[in-house]
Amino acid sequence: MAQQRTILTIAGSDSGGGAGIQADLRTFAAHGHFGTSAITALTAQNTTGVQGVHGVPPEFLEQQIVSILNDIEVHACKTGMLFDAANTSATARALKAHYSGQNMPPIVCDPVCVSTSGHSLLEPEALQVMINELFPLTTLLTPNKAEAELLLADHINTLEQMVKAARNLLKLGPRAVLLKGGHIVSNKTDIDRLSASGVRVVGRDEDAMILLANSLQPESFVVDVLCESTRGTSIFLRPRIDSLSTHGTGCTLSAALACSLSDGASVFDAVVQATAYTHLGIVTAHKIGHGHGPLNHLHALSRRNIALPSPTNPHPLTRRLISHNLDHWRDFVQHEFVWRLGQGTLPRTAFVHFIKQDYHYLKYYARAHGLLAAKASSFTLIESATTTIMNVLRELNTHRSLCASFDVSSDELERSEESIETIAYGSFLMDMGLQGDTTQLLISVLACLLGYGEVGLWLQSEANRKGSGVFLEGNPYRQWIEDYSGPLYQSAVRSGLELIESVAAAASPSLGRLEEWCAIWDRCTGLEKAFWDMGLRASG
Amino acid sequence: MAQQRTILTIAGSDSGGGAGIQADLRTFAAHGHFGTSAITALTAQNTTGVQGVHGVPPEFLEQQIVSILNDIEVHACKTGMLFDAANTSATARALKAHYSGQNMPPIVCDPVCVSTSGHSLLEPEALQVMINELFPLTTLLTPNKAEAELLLADHINTLEQMVKAARNLLKLGPRAVLLKGGHIVSNKTDIDRLSASGVRVVGRDEDAMILLANSLQPESFVVDVLCESTRGTSIFLRPRIDSLSTHGTGCTLSAALACSLSDGASVFDAVVQATAYTHLGIVTAHKIGHGHGPLNHLHALSRRNIALPSPTNPHPLTRRLISHNLDHWRDFVQHEFVWRLGQGTLPRTAFVHFIKQDYHYLKYYARAHGLLAAKASSFTLIESATTTIMNVLRELNTHRSLCASFDVSSDELERSEESIETIAYGSFLMDMGLQGDTTQLLISVLACLLGYGEVGLWLQSEANRKGSGVFLEGNPYRQWIEDYSGPLYQSAVRSGLELIESVAAAASPSLGRLEEWCAIWDRCTGLEKAFWDMGLRASG
Repeated sequence: MAQQRTILTIAGSDSGGGAGIQADLRTFAAHGHFGTSAITALTAQNTTGVQGVHGVPPEFLEQQIVSILNDIEVHACKTGMLFDAANTSATARALKAHYSGQNMPPIVCDPVCVSTSGHSLLEPEALQVMINELFPLTTLLTPNKAEAELLLADHINTLEQMVKAARNLLKLGPRAVLLKGGHIVSNKTDIDRLSASGVRVVGRDEDAMILLANSLQPESFVVDVLCESTRGTSIFLRPRIDSLSTHGTGCTLSAALACSLSDGASVFDAVVQATAYTHLGIVTAHKIGHGHGPLNHLHALSRRNIALPSPTNPHPLTRRLISHNLDHWRDFVQHEFVWRLGQGTLPRTAFVHFIKQDYHYLKYYARAHGLLAAKASSFTLIESATTTIMNVLRELNTHRSLCASFDVSSDELERSEESIETIAYGSFLMDMGLQGDTTQLLISVLACLLGYGEVGLWLQSEANRKGSGVFLEGNPYRQWIEDYSGPLYQSAVRSGLELIESVAAAASPSLGRLEEWCAIWDRCTGLEKAFWDMGLRASG
Repeated sequence: MAQQRTILTIAGSDSGGGAGIQADLRTFAAHGHFGTSAITALTAQNTTGVQGVHGVPPEFLEQQIVSILNDIEVHACKTGMLFDAANTSATARALKAHYSGQNMPPIVCDPVCVSTSGHSLLEPEALQVMINELFPLTTLLTPNKAEAELLLADHINTLEQMVKAARNLLKLGPRAVLLKGGHIVSNKTDIDRLSASGVRVVGRDEDAMILLANSLQPESFVVDVLCESTRGTSIFLRPRIDSLSTHGTGCTLSAALACSLSDGASVFDAVVQATAYTHLGIVTAHKIGHGHGPLNHLHALSRRNIALPSPTNPHPLTRRLISHNLDHWRDFVQHEFVWRLGQGTLPRTAFVHFIKQDYHYLKYYARAHGLLAAKASSFTLIESATTTIMNVLRELNTHRSLCASFDVSSDELERSEESIETIAYGSFLMDMGLQGDTTQLLISVLACLLGYGEVGLWLQSEANRKGSGVFLEGNPYRQWIEDYSGPLYQSAVRSGLELIESVAAAASPSLGRLEEWCAIWDRCTGLEKAFWDMGLRASG
């Protein structure tokens, strides 16, 4: 997410959650920002209308603003429903007092006068106070048709009248005006006429690609008009959509504008971003309540499926892979083969068969890492894959000397037949290497790496536990245990662990990808168990 | 995200945003749920303390609750700071009145009495009202040490005393009690003693994996005690962490509990999920303000990097790929080669050279789709890849007959040398097929598919535009134009478009993956441009 900013909303509370500070705070959260809020009035409200309003005393509104500004640095501010003249000037007074002599953060003023449901939300006499005291502080004013008509005491019915109105509102003091066209429908002709008169038109992208343009050819548009004291007039086109989910659209738009401005965006870019965000909020809204429902503020978010690494959970992905099927994992790392190996009761024939098959398996394992190097897009990954191959080659010598100590010649080792379990597991690694990306391949080789590391540590700790029956001194398989619990192998395990966790931390997988990863992990732990089973069966 | 639920919080407002309904609403949003809120009192508050409180009249609190419940179905409810006796019984009264005779949704009662900063948030006489009127409605009560001591008029200093207190609180009416141990440190001995007495212990996972357990071996724990009337006592262990970011921890936990309960989770599972969520919120918090800062409520969220498809933007990924470097795209689809082809002024030699190289390219293109089929994990993708190969083979015949019409024999076509541009582009496709997953391969072949579709449509529309100079009737390249603007090729383009969009919609890519996709797209459009350039150079 973008760097977290803090934004202040000074507005009313909507118990129904679709508008007011509730919509603002959801919008801030959807942008990854932190919200503070000074409440001007409470409403008892739902999607069908406003049932009651409880004004907050101006002194207390001011006290809320002061508490926030005295402690927390604010990167942008928006004002919404200010309720009455006293709270309107309390707002302006508190902002001016705190920022006297310093730069104010960008301020978006949404001159809320009437609710979507038609309920008046501002006392008439407050209008002039807003113009006199708040507009001079305003970076961007965002009236809709009705509010602009009130502010200018004039009617607005055409696109031309909108542009004229926006320019007149600019004269009232704000540094920019975004006049929202939600209630005025414009057609191509209106737009072409304006375009000819030098107004910048945004949102006509038929020319970008016929292929895509064909899929949407609206005949009527919703047009927002932006007038900036510095760079003239622009209009933003959107296809008209019919929706009941428009409760709090104005609040949401001004909150999204504050988010963009807090990130340092220009007013123009902020309008591009915020109108797109708000539009998609309407289009993707879920039905809530019986009247005009809220927007979907969360359309731009998805859930992290793997938690961020933290001091108390430094390996969230590995923990998830193991814990989502813990018994499966235990069947692998605490297999009877391992028990009996640790207790020195594993038949020689079983161990020899296992070590021969493991020798063949290691060839696949090395080749899989060759494939990983071939698929790598960074030298870092190429190096880590290659290092693993070098480790495998070292492990190989251990196998040879182990076999020698069990009177198995290198030649016999080489000539031994691959078992079905070895073919299955080895070929699966190569298949993943062909089928998937580097992450899927990494996970495919991880279960073996971590599992043998775990087995090594576990046998070691059991050997130190009285009465476990596991022992090293005099255990025919001592060398094997010490190899896998030893520093060389364990540091390889560490690197593998860090590598896969860094991949997941850098890019939290989608649910679908995570399920793929878990499926690969299960397949591998199952194949590992089958590998031990094979060893045991060779006992007889 | 999980299915959206609606949750009601009845609590105070924290202007600083870290606690109260503000923390609740952020927590609901972080879980993908919709929040409604009835405000009991406003506070002028920041991270250093509470500077003022403005109580809301009980009638108006009740009116807020009624407005919400009369219109919006609520799936869970939490209560926080209730301020005074009147608002406490107004809350109970409103809930009882609305749900009389029906099932109430799960209700989490956080008996807020004192703020983190030590400010009293509940009038003493309200305590008894809460016990008498609210506890009987409560699914889960979540006091901390201080609140439990007030409710029981008793001292709690040890883990044993916590368990005893939780059991006594259960006798006061709630169906379950979660007594939070944030202010009591327990060690392994305390925990083992309880475990021996039959209490269920959650959060000791050393046994899951030595490898991971080694990374965290805390000596002292924070323990939360859960008492359920139905299933006895459980304790939840967390390593103790020192942090200043604990403002609103109680609000956040109870809000997260309400989220889990609204999803139908058991109280036990809700505690597991909500404590983990809250803990990570503290651990990953950003520094805000000068005192006890808020938690990071958004740790579980990441930004969607590709918008959801919508009626007004049905192809967000393709639009993004094209628009992130629009000039690059235009250099490809509106290349001079294309212009002159459309105007019939393209030298025969240029076209013949191009068509020969395109013939060789198509072999790579077909092989790339063979690789795609080999990498596919669903029959759907295998079918779509194979269908493309069949289309290419058909396109091949067009090439042969085109060449024939330009006096180029199939034999000459076959024997012609591959140019460097053809080798570069063709080998790049095969490399992507080796290096990446199916999505990366899909994007690698998409630029060609869409680009030629666009070229076909564009030439067709230009031919219909007076004075464009582009014409079909009598144009030596008419067949070529009509092939790529024709229904067969265009329907293949549609399928490709839908396929890639469905992949992105199903799993929004991480920023890193999206950058990879854009890089592949740029590489392809660049190679396409080079391919036309090659054609033109052959003019002379």
